[in-house]
Amino acid sequence: MRVVGIDPGSRTTGIGIVEAEGGRLHALHYRALGLGDGPFPERLGHLFREVCAAVGDYGAEAAAVETVYVKRNIDSALKLGQARGAAIAALVDAGLEVGEYTPAVIKEAVVGRGSAGKDQVGFMIQRLLGLPEAAPEDAADALAVAVCHSHHLQAGARLRAAGAPGGKRS
Amino acid sequence: MRVVGIDPGSRTTGIGIVEAEGGRLHALHYRALGLGDGPFPERLGHLFREVCAAVGDYGAEAAAVETVYVKRNIDSALKLGQARGAAIAALVDAGLEVGEYTPAVIKEAVVGRGSAGKDQVGFMIQRLLGLPEAAPEDAADALAVAVCHSHHLQAGARLRAAGAPGGKRS
Repeated sequence: MRVVGIDPGSRTTGIGIVEAEGGRLHALHYRALGLGDGPFPERLGHLFREVCAAVGDYGAEAAAVETVYVKRNIDSALKLGQARGAAIAALVDAGLEVGEYTPAVIKEAVVGRGSAGKDQVGFMIQRLLGLPEAAPEDAADALAVAVCHSHHLQAGARLRAAGAPGGKRS
Repeated sequence: MRVVGIDPGSRTTGIGIVEAEGGRLHALHYRALGLGDGPFPERLGHLFREVCAAVGDYGAEAAAVETVYVKRNIDSALKLGQARGAAIAALVDAGLEVGEYTPAVIKEAVVGRGSAGKDQVGFMIQRLLGLPEAAPEDAADALAVAVCHSHHLQAGARLRAAGAPGGKRS
């Protein structure tokens, strides 16, 4: 099962694709995609096309995006929302269901602690996926969402296989 | 010249397409697209596909979206941003340049007064485009963006035709 994770941002968007094989996860692809500082619609178009390309090139079968949380700045929320909207449109247009996870759930899945710091997420992602070096921060965050969703899908599949009640499809 | 205007919203998105012919504008298509209350990614996917379909069906050659302004609510800003991002991704993916106009500029173009109310915009849109009855509010807003962009493009073309300095391409 190949899972794409997206960490959307209006300047840099992380894209990460992991594959589960025999109980182990490895990274198929990851990058921190710079969107430049051109007109905003062009940046969104670029983001959309690059997500479409990654999904197509690596045959992603499931997708997940971090739920976003912006504390104060309305303008940041609008910009981040637009990047997230363009990314999700690309995933849904490719026929993928899109899982959504809060940062705490993602950190719990990757580090084992919902309050973990960015550097701990990066460290664990490098270790879990056996990367030769630490991934750029946005790419590591995207891989973390993908890892979280992979765990979730695998757990659901095991529950269903065991005939457990509540082993519902995600 | 066929121009599509979008008034993005996370529950209802207005889509309007106008055509300029011999100095007069008429409406080719307009609708207030309900996005339901299903999972948010599905709503964004629906929005994206309907914008793609409208652009394709009516051969839009230019596009414009209202710049959004959210006063206080961060959650609303994120949701609206996502709808706007999905809509703009559809327009850019269709190869269209996307113009952006503030509400005041749109009202000025349609009503002649930047502080005009929603009902005045609806009334003038019905009159300008010779609609048999008032368009639903979100559709009227989308048509208003399209009318504003049409005026802007026509003015730019006239300036270029006259060889005026500053008659730059939008």
